[in-house]
Amino acid sequence: MGLFQRIGKALEPLMLAMGVVSPLATIPQLYKLFFSHSQHAAGLSLATWTLYTFIAFLWTLYGVYHKNPTIWIGNCLSFLMDATMSAGIYLKVGLVM
Amino acid sequence: MGLFQRIGKALEPLMLAMGVVSPLATIPQLYKLFFSHSQHAAGLSLATWTLYTFIAFLWTLYGVYHKNPTIWIGNCLSFLMDATMSAGIYLKVGLVM
Repeated sequence: MGLFQRIGKALEPLMLAMGVVSPLATIPQLYKLFFSHSQHAAGLSLATWTLYTFIAFLWTLYGVYHKNPTIWIGNCLSFLMDATMSAGIYLKVGLVM
Repeated sequence: MGLFQRIGKALEPLMLAMGVVSPLATIPQLYKLFFSHSQHAAGLSLATWTLYTFIAFLWTLYGVYHKNPTIWIGNCLSFLMDATMSAGIYLKVGLVM
């Protein structure tokens, strides 16, 4: 069994956890935007975070359609995090790319 | 058929495209970091982008293991984009959260 195969197999039971790591990883970025580095909010891209929000929303719907919590739990959390990022950038910088 | 179901079904043939939208969405953020708003790089979280990179790498391996291009193509692109974001933040700000 190749290295890819071994790692892929090992990841199988971790998929739900992996889906939740990405939204949790957004917390330090949210903290910088809202608390510690608000003066640098202009360096964040509203286009990027709005698209992330939209895509997470579509994946959430897709996961609900397939009744697959591994897909919708992580993406629903990502949707909330990314929407909060987008709202924060809009509030602090306005409607810029 | 409920609204969720109708949208979920409509998304089925779009999955590969959806997987590629997220990495492409990162381009405006990369542009701000490297070109237009480098002075605001401190507002970007190295923790967030490094974790994004790591997770995209794991999903790429997982997609290759399952020989599923819908999973690995988008995540491989995300890995490259997020790794470039992480490298840029590190180069411009150093090893901060």
